[in-house]
Order: sequence, then C-alpha cells, then structure tokens
Amino acid sequence: MSEPRRGFASDNAATIHPEVLAAITRANAGHAFGYGHDPLTEALAGRFQGEFGEHARAFGVWGGTGANVLCLRAACRPFDAVICAETAHLNVDECGAPEAIAGVKLLSVPTPDGKLDEAMIEGMLGRVGDEHAVQPRVVSISQCTELGTVYTVEELASLARFSHAHGLLVHVDGARLANAAAALGISLRAITTDAGVDMLSFGGTKNGLLGAEAVVFLDPALADGFEYLRKQSMQLASKMRFLSAQLDALLTDELWLRCASHANEMASLLADRVRSLAGVTLTRPVQANAVFAALAPEAIAPLRERYDFYVWDEPAGEVRWMCSWDTTPEDVEGFAAAVAEVAG
Amino acid sequence: MSEPRRGFASDNAATIHPEVLAAITRANAGHAFGYGHDPLTEALAGRFQGEFGEHARAFGVWGGTGANVLCLRAACRPFDAVICAETAHLNVDECGAPEAIAGVKLLSVPTPDGKLDEAMIEGMLGRVGDEHAVQPRVVSISQCTELGTVYTVEELASLARFSHAHGLLVHVDGARLANAAAALGISLRAITTDAGVDMLSFGGTKNGLLGAEAVVFLDPALADGFEYLRKQSMQLASKMRFLSAQLDALLTDELWLRCASHANEMASLLADRVRSLAGVTLTRPVQANAVFAALAPEAIAPLRERYDFYVWDEPAGEVRWMCSWDTTPEDVEGFAAAVAEVAG
Amino acid sequence: MSEPRRGFASDNAATIHPEVLAAITRANAGHAFGYGHDPLTEALAGRFQGEFGEHARAFGVWGGTGANVLCLRAACRPFDAVICAETAHLNVDECGAPEAIAGVKLLSVPTPDGKLDEAMIEGMLGRVGDEHAVQPRVVSISQCTELGTVYTVEELASLARFSHAHGLLVHVDGARLANAAAALGISLRAITTDAGVDMLSFGGTKNGLLGAEAVVFLDPALADGFEYLRKQSMQLASKMRFLSAQLDALLTDELWLRCASHANEMASLLADRVRSLAGVTLTRPVQANAVFAALAPEAIAPLRERYDFYVWDEPAGEVRWMCSWDTTPEDVEGFAAAVAEVAG
Amino acid sequence: MSEPRRGFASDNAATIHPEVLAAITRANAGHAFGYGHDPLTEALAGRFQGEFGEHARAFGVWGGTGANVLCLRAACRPFDAVICAETAHLNVDECGAPEAIAGVKLLSVPTPDGKLDEAMIEGMLGRVGDEHAVQPRVVSISQCTELGTVYTVEELASLARFSHAHGLLVHVDGARLANAAAALGISLRAITTDAGVDMLSFGGTKNGLLGAEAVVFLDPALADGFEYLRKQSMQLASKMRFLSAQLDALLTDELWLRCASHANEMASLLADRVRSLAGVTLTRPVQANAVFAALAPEAIAPLRERYDFYVWDEPAGEVRWMCSWDTTPEDVEGFAAAVAEVAG
Repeated sequence: MSEPRRGFASDNAATIHPEVLAAITRANAGHAFGYGHDPLTEALAGRFQGEFGEHARAFGVWGGTGANVLCLRAACRPFDAVICAETAHLNVDECGAPEAIAGVKLLSVPTPDGKLDEAMIEGMLGRVGDEHAVQPRVVSISQCTELGTVYTVEELASLARFSHAHGLLVHVDGARLANAAAALGISLRAITTDAGVDMLSFGGTKNGLLGAEAVVFLDPALADGFEYLRKQSMQLASKMRFLSAQLDALLTDELWLRCASHANEMASLLADRVRSLAGVTLTRPVQANAVFAALAPEAIAPLRERYDFYVWDEPAGEVRWMCSWDTTPEDVEGFAAAVAEVAG
Repeated sequence: MSEPRRGFASDNAATIHPEVLAAITRANAGHAFGYGHDPLTEALAGRFQGEFGEHARAFGVWGGTGANVLCLRAACRPFDAVICAETAHLNVDECGAPEAIAGVKLLSVPTPDGKLDEAMIEGMLGRVGDEHAVQPRVVSISQCTELGTVYTVEELASLARFSHAHGLLVHVDGARLANAAAALGISLRAITTDAGVDMLSFGGTKNGLLGAEAVVFLDPALADGFEYLRKQSMQLASKMRFLSAQLDALLTDELWLRCASHANEMASLLADRVRSLAGVTLTRPVQANAVFAALAPEAIAPLRERYDFYVWDEPAGEVRWMCSWDTTPEDVEGFAAAVAEVAG
Repeated sequence: MSEPRRGFASDNAATIHPEVLAAITRANAGHAFGYGHDPLTEALAGRFQGEFGEHARAFGVWGGTGANVLCLRAACRPFDAVICAETAHLNVDECGAPEAIAGVKLLSVPTPDGKLDEAMIEGMLGRVGDEHAVQPRVVSISQCTELGTVYTVEELASLARFSHAHGLLVHVDGARLANAAAALGISLRAITTDAGVDMLSFGGTKNGLLGAEAVVFLDPALADGFEYLRKQSMQLASKMRFLSAQLDALLTDELWLRCASHANEMASLLADRVRSLAGVTLTRPVQANAVFAALAPEAIAPLRERYDFYVWDEPAGEVRWMCSWDTTPEDVEGFAAAVAEVAG
Repeated sequence: MSEPRRGFASDNAATIHPEVLAAITRANAGHAFGYGHDPLTEALAGRFQGEFGEHARAFGVWGGTGANVLCLRAACRPFDAVICAETAHLNVDECGAPEAIAGVKLLSVPTPDGKLDEAMIEGMLGRVGDEHAVQPRVVSISQCTELGTVYTVEELASLARFSHAHGLLVHVDGARLANAAAALGISLRAITTDAGVDMLSFGGTKNGLLGAEAVVFLDPALADGFEYLRKQSMQLASKMRFLSAQLDALLTDELWLRCASHANEMASLLADRVRSLAGVTLTRPVQANAVFAALAPEAIAPLRERYDFYVWDEPAGEVRWMCSWDTTPEDVEGFAAAVAEVAG
C-alpha cells in the first residue's frame, strides 16, 4: 500500500472517517466494563431512540451479515420463512448464513430492479396454513437495494401495510440506509419507523466506520431476549465501547448524513460524466451511491488495470462503480476520463 | 467516563495499546479491497507462519466466541463431540453457541484446577462406536485456563499424544495464550505446534487490541473450506485490513509478549502484596495474569465500590482480580492497600 | 429367527401386541388422506383428551427421540436450556439430537437414582439473567427413570410447583410412563396433568406397539405451530392412520395399563426370585419393569450366552434385566434358574 | 371409514399390501434386539446389494423427508448447497427441513417439466470458489418427478457425468423410484447405480408399505458414520425389525415392480379414458402413475365431492390424479365416468 489510491470497488474499500477514528481514540482512556456495560454504550441507546423514535431498541454488532442473521433469529420460529428479492444480499452474498445459522428458508422473488412490491409478496403466500410448507413471517428488503435503487417512503409504507395485514414483519437490510435517507432527503425515522418498518440492520461500516453495525428493533417486543441471541451468535464485542464510539460518532452532527450525501453526490457526478459517452450505457437508475453501466467487454480489462471496481454481470458487460464517503470530485473526474479513454 | 480509572475486572476492560492504534491509523490510507483481499491481510499469513511454523494457516476473526465456535465447526461432523473442562469458556460463557451454532455436544469434565488430563479424557471414551452416543472428536483446553492456571509444555505434549492416539484433535482456546507463553518463557510455537496442538483460537483483544482474534490451524487440512465457514459464521470483516493491522501490530516487535509479560508481572506483584494479609487467602496458584482470592463476604462490597472486579464464587467469597497490559505498579499498590484496608 | 425366544434386553425387543396388530389390519381398508387427515387420527385427539384432560393436545410421531426433541423444539428459544439428570436418555442416548437438531444445551445434573429434585434444579439457576449463559427453560424428567425408579405424585407435584415458580416448564420423557402409572396405581392424568406437567413424550413402542409415540401438550399454548415443527422434524407419517390405529388400540380397554402392569409384575417376580441368591445383589429399587443387579463378572458372559440383556456398568458388574408386556412367568422362572446356576 | 373407498388423492392414501402385512406378522415372533441388531435387518443389507450392486449400503428409515434430509446431511458440509428443481419435494413440501435440520441452502431452478438438465445445473455454478456464496455439492433430482415425468437412463447418465465432472454428487429422491423403473422397463440398478447416481432415497410407503423408506448409498464412502446421523436425525426405529420386514417384502418376488407397474397401468388407463373427453386437457405427459389434467373450475368441486384428489394449480384449473398399487380398473372406469359427467 505504498501509494494509497481510491477506486470504485465498494464503499467498504473506503477508509475510516477521521471523526470516527478520533472517537475511538477518545474512548481509549481508562478501563471500562466489557460487553456493553460501559457509559458510551449505555448512552448510545438514547441516541438511537433520538433517531428512530422512543420505542427503538438498538444493539451494536460486528458486521452486516451478523446484523441480518440476528434479525431473522429474533423474529423467526424454526418453520418461519423470509420473503426477499432474488438479488438480496441475504440470499446471494452471505454464504448460506440465514439457512445454516438461523435455520430459515428464504423465499426469493425475481425483481426487475431489486425492489419487492405487494404483488410479489402476495405471490409467496399461497401455502399459508399448509404444514408441508414453511410459513412466511418476514419480508426483508434492502434499502438501498443491491442494484443501487431506493424505495420511496410511499412504497415502503404501502409494502409495510400490506405485510402487516398478512401477519408479516418488515425487515430492512440497511447496510446503506443512510444513502437512501440522504437520497430521499428525509430522516432515518421517516424512512423506517414512520413507514412501518419493524426491524433493521443499520449499516455503519460502508459509511465511514472501522467495523460496526446495529440491529434496531422498532417493534420493541422483538428485542426480548436479544442479548442472549447476540452473544450466542458471536456478535457481542468484548471491548464494546469501541463499537459504540464508532456508532456514536456516526450519529453525531449528522455524520451519517454528511458521509452518505457526499457519496451519493459523487455517484451523481460520475453518472453525469459518463452518461453521454460513446460505448457506455447506464443500466440502472442512479439513485444513491452506485453507478451501474454496460461497457464493451474489451474496455473493461484495461479500465480495471487502472481502477478497482467489480464486474456485475460478465456476459452483459455490466459493471458496478461504487462511490464512498471519501471519494473526491477529482477521483471522479479522473475515473470518468479513464472511462472515456477505454470506451471510446 | 469523566475520570478514567483502571480496575481488576478483566483484561478486556483494558485499553487499546498505542502501537495498535497507531497501526490502525497507518492502515487508514487509500482504498483497499474488502474481506481480506488487501496487502496487510495477505502479509499476515506469513507473519503467523513465522510464529507458528510454516504449515500454519491463520484467519482473522472478530471475537473469541467466534474463534472457538469456528474451530469446532471446522473439525466436527454433526455427531462429533468435544471434551472440555466443566469450567471451559466454551461450556459456561458462550451462551450455548457451540450447541446452537456448531450443533456440537460438549462432554464436560469436572477438574480441580481447570486443566484436563489423560485420565479425564479417557473417562469420556466409553461410548466410542455406539451409535446412540455422540463421538468424541476434539479435546478443547484453555491455555491459560479460566482459573488462571497454565499447562506445562510436557502436560500439553502428553495430552496431545494421548488424544492423537485415540483419534482426537487438540484445540486450544488461547484467549490468553500469550500470557501462558510468557509465563512459561517459551515461544508461541513451542506451546502449540511443537506440543502437538492441531488448532487454536489465538487471542488478541484481551492483550491490547481493539477487537481481533485469529483461528490458527496447525494441521492445515482443517483449514480446507474455512473461508466459507468464516463468512457463513458472520466472522468475516468487510474492512478486514483493520483487523489485520491489529494482529500485525501484535506480532511486531513481540508486542504480544511485552503486553502479556507485563500483565503477568502485575498479577505476581499483586499476589505478593496480598498473600500475607489477614483476611485474604489466595485460592489458586498465580501462574499468569489472574489472582483468585477469598475474602470475608463483608469485605467484598466496600472494595467493589472502589475498584471493579468480579465475584467468582459468591458462597465461597472467592473473587477474581485480573491484570492487564495497562495495569501499572501504582494501580496494584493502590489496590493492595485498599484490600488491606477492607480485609483487615 | 428360527427359534423365537424372549430375553430381558429391552422392552423394545418385545413383540407387537395382538390387539395392536389387529387394529392396524382393521385400519387397512380403503383409502384415507395422508398426514393425519383421516378419521382415525381425528378421533384420536379426543381419546387423548379423555386420558389427559380436555386441554391436552396430542400428536403422533414415529419414535421416542423424535418425541423428546420435538418437545424441546416447541418450548425452547435458541438460548434456552434444559435441566435434566445426567442419566437422562436425552443426555446420553440420543446421539446429540437435542444439541444438533433442537440447538439446545442440556444442563445435566448427577443424581443418585435418576431422579431430579428441587435442590438440584435450583443449583442450575445461578446464571439466570446473565447473557453469557444459556437460560434454563425446561426441566425434563424421565418417568420411569432410566434406572427403573418412579417419581411419586407428590414428588412430581412439588417439582412442578418449584419449576413453575421459577419460570420453568416441566417435560416428562414418558417412554415408560405407562409403567410408572401402573406402578403407582393411578391414572395417566393424575401422573401428569394433575401433577403440573406441561408436556410429555408418551411412549407406545416399548409397551406393545410396532412404532408410535405421541407428543402431548398439557399446556396447549405449547402446541401452537406444532404441526409445522413435526413435519419439519421428519416425524409426520404419510400413512398416519397406521400410527393412529396403534395409539388408539393402546388407549382402548386400557391396553396400556394391562401391558404395563404385566411387565411390572414380571420384574417384581424376577426380583423376588433372585433377591436372595448368592452372588446376586439388587442395585436399585425395583419399582417398575426393570431389575438392576450386580453379578460377579465371570457369571455375566455365560448368562448372556443363554439370554439377551445389557451390561449397564461393566466395571461394577451391574446388569439390567428388562421385562416386557410379553414376558411370561415361565420366562422369568427359566431366567431366574439360569441366574442361580451361573451366580452360585 | 364405514365405507372404505379409493380415490385418486395420493399413493400414500393407499393401503398396505397384504404381502407386507403378512411379513410384519411373521416378524412378530419372539424377541429381537432393537435398533437393527436383528437377523431380518442384517439380511436386508444383502438384499439391497442384490438390487443396487455390491457396493450399495442401505439404511432403513421412517419416512421420505427423513431419507432426503439424511442424504443431504451425509453429503454436505455446512457451506455446501444442493441444486434442485423448483418443484422438488425437498424445496416445497418438507417445511424447510433441508434448511432447518440439515442447514443446507437449496439452489432451485425453474423447469418446464420438473426435470433438471445440464444447462440448468451449469447456470448455478457461477459462484464456485467465491467465499460469499454457498458451494454447490449435490444435484438432487426426483425420479419420478413431482409432475409425473420420468428421466430416461440416458438423461440420468448424462446428468451424472456432467455433475461428476463438476465435483457434484447426484442424489435421487426416489419416493416413486419403483414407478420410474417400471415405466422404463429396467432394473433398479440400471436406473441408479449404472447411471452414475451416488445416493438415493428409496421409497416404500407410496408403494404398498405401512411406513418405511431406505437411504441407499451407491458411493459407499458417503455411508461413513451414517449410523450416527440416522440416530441423531430421529430416524432410527427401535423395533427396526418391522421396518426391515416391510422393505424385505418389497424386494421379495419383485413386489416393488408388481405394485408400481400396476399403478402405472392404472394411470395409463385413466389417461386413455379421459384424453378425448370434452372439457378435459391432459397437461403433462403421463409417464408413470400420475395424471395431470385441466378442468373447468366449476367441474372440480362436484368431482371432489365424489372422489378425493388434489387441485395442483388452482388458477389454471389443473388437478392431479394419482393411481396406487391398489387402484382397480373398476375404480378408474368409475372415476372416468364421473369426470365425463362433470366435465361435459
């Protein structure tokens, strides 16, 4: 790493925000009881309630897969199932953790844009009451989705009403929830609690932290016994104060919003710069911090030699360019110039 | 946390060592691929081989319970069992993770001092080959034990020979392995690889890190497919470089040894200071960084008002005093004086 | 099997009772919907309520391990634990099914006679509320125990009161419940529902059936969703009518009581015949259909050449002789004579 | 059940074949060790080798879901996945047992006719070697499929070759394997062992048994330790001799073939009788013992008042008529007449 550089591979390739590192350093004074019995962690509960409403109950965990799996473990009996998009991280990127660790079957639905709607959910309800089939219990959506799209508040509220009417809980995989709130220009509460969401995985690592996420129950009954589940699921940090310091920093002076807005703006700038280039087609709406584009296959390899990014769909020549809190306008301009060069 | 202070509750109540924080800060430059595909993580493999031998395969994980459970998942078929001491962390302090996450039954054995011996293991082998009983596959020992005791190299080697002769693998829960090596004055390799250990949970968090441990396979065949298990078990950090930076710092200039030796010395000093006090009885040999003592019940509460520590066995009036890398001689002297005051 | 003979190995070595085989044959007429949607199964619910009270909800399953594991799956959250005797079938004879299939940790207690009491249960409650430890939720007892002993109704009621006062449910592994009821001379209801039991595994196979047991919930809230658990746990018979026919026969004209009383009487007769023999010591009270005895080691082998039975504790020379519904007085006399011969 | 009648709901609604009941009765003489340590069970191993080849290792189990789940438990590590058709019983009719009990993720593929082919399998291999995704290990096919279709031997052999070339094992859910063999006019061995199948769930219950299936490993290495898995998975019958008696009867004088051929012939007769009726469209090829047809919605209810059968696809008006070993030509003629009446 002699020459630090920034690419467009993922927002988890980005650095720790200086305010976060400063918070860790400040927390590193004196002894503190482990496992969350420290003042920083105790104060954090109130901060989360400030963001998500007075009934919210938040629990810090190590990672995003842990947060997602813990939500399912908290909500599901052994025969309950989870409806999600076929592209959901839960379904394709967690190495079977929902099944192997939570013992839960996913009922995945193909979607055009990574977003579930009521008709898709309804299509999975045909076996309710049939003892030979798993019973849908949770609708899990990603906000933003894995395709960079964002549910509107109206879509969320409608989906939650439908879900509740059918006895289903709504879970949000919010690894990039901040980017969605920033994109919609609304509060974290408006995009979750007020829209009828029951529980969420609140992302931090992709938004400037070293490594910390939170499980937030908006339906506090779901939090009953959760301390045990977190410990058993290997997500209870012994030096919890350092996770709490990160999450506290993220909620201080709207750092979550500053970071996410910036990342979104950089994606918007990048989209603007490449939209009209010959040989480049934007393949998805650019609504948050991801840009999906199709390039000629022969353009991809030389571009990857200069910048890190992922090929999303090899046969289609579709690539994903992800912007982060630390992406600079100069990074974008430089990258766009490189794209123009290879694509032309 | 207005007045940082240091108690004797646990080595996980301690701070991050400055060299570790500096390493995290250094690693925080530019982008790096997530999930361990970064130069720091790639280099770490060799550092661990330097410590544990050329066949060692090491994998960073978030926490100690994760490390232990992952070792069991890597080694055990569904009907395999793990022999351990009744006091093992696995058995009493992981909220049933071995059973619920790894699906493994523990065959726990009462011990006088937290240490297993060959006769105890042999006593658990009576049902080998009987399809109605789980089949012992792993012997898991804690080094140091939860009672602050340390296996000698000869004890380890003898136990490993016996285990291997009976088709059993040896796992070491090494949350405090550094303290054991420091106590014995030998290398990490001598206390593990050379003694016949097959796999271990290598502790870092209790020895000056923010939060990082490693699973180390000394029998490399056990590492086959382990990347998948780690991801599925929610122990793969997305910004892995910051875990690797911590572990790298721990292995640099023998930081692990400096930290552990110091903690051990502080425990020794504390034991010296309280050994002859009226009303204080040391209840276990002080071999590493823990001091166990019995006090009159009425002495415990006032002491806990001034210093944090745990009551180990309430009816017996037994308490545990744990020293850390950041415990100072002044801390010890101040504490010993407080003990003298309440115990007298 | 050219020469059918009867030994004393186990009550599951016995035959199917003719009334049971006749019931299977009668049920074998015409088509019937599978999976319990047949008239015989529907009628069985009421028969069980007749025996266990109007709130009882009974579900036929294939086997005893299935019944036990299903009770645990129905009652336990992932972090709940089950208190049981160290000798419990659950603990030693189900190849880790409670842990691997139900994900439940057993907290086993040494007992002198296979029976739990309140003090033993209380001893396992020290970690209630501690997130690092599994949380006791169920007390599981065996009635009769694996050592042939029988809880009195007073013992059961007292244990249930204590358990309920501590938020614990009482489960009875009733593989031999009929033998216990017969021994005590009371109804199935008196020994379970009226004593405060919450759920039980009701044995049939050891008492004259081909292969059928029932899970009976006396607290009907526990039955919520149980149909799904049974199917998922591979215990839902597709041709359920033939399991129901067996259970129906067992509850008809008190076949359960006739079979169990006879088996108990045969054990009593056997105990009488061998009690005063030189070289034979009865090692446990003979309260139901098992006789435990100590013999000189050199007497065991020749006796096993003539009759099947199990060695219970090899070093102690302790053997188990089990009587069945089909054991005859002649079998007992013949066996007692053989014992006299080898032991003398 | 005052008037026994036969419908077309399922082959598990049928009766026990008289030869099977006679075999159970014959086995009911004298005592026999439980759990398979009896002469009938011991002899059965050889009978299965006679059918499936000398390397076959067969294990009796209670039910079909048990057989399927046990095959997966025997073959899969925690991160392994199973490729199957979207319509597979494993995927839709086992209440999540593969996920909850075996911890295995299913990668299900839409198919036109319930049959997998090489291209479908290849489409699931894109994430091999990627630690974020489960790793395909088993291809599970149903023979006959849930849609009544049958793989030819050539299709099987080709699929097995492809699977093996990609490191995948082939599992056959053979709940109706006998019907497939009968339809193809070949031996059980030709349809499995010789075609490259590695393991199978061999159905008996749908083909005249009371309740017994077998797990058969054609790759005997997969059977290593299977006794423990069977016990732990609650599929080891204590009075195993009565399961073995059923399976033995099924393999005696080709009872499996006689029963299956007859059921197939009845389906063929039924298809012939209704094929040209107005208002009836056969929706799937009739290759074994199932007839799928579309009827006008208003015809279905009155027909179900007279005969039991399942509606397969309500919106499409598709129904399933299943023939059994005990379906008579008169049953078929009567039913076809009723269909003609309601459909006209």
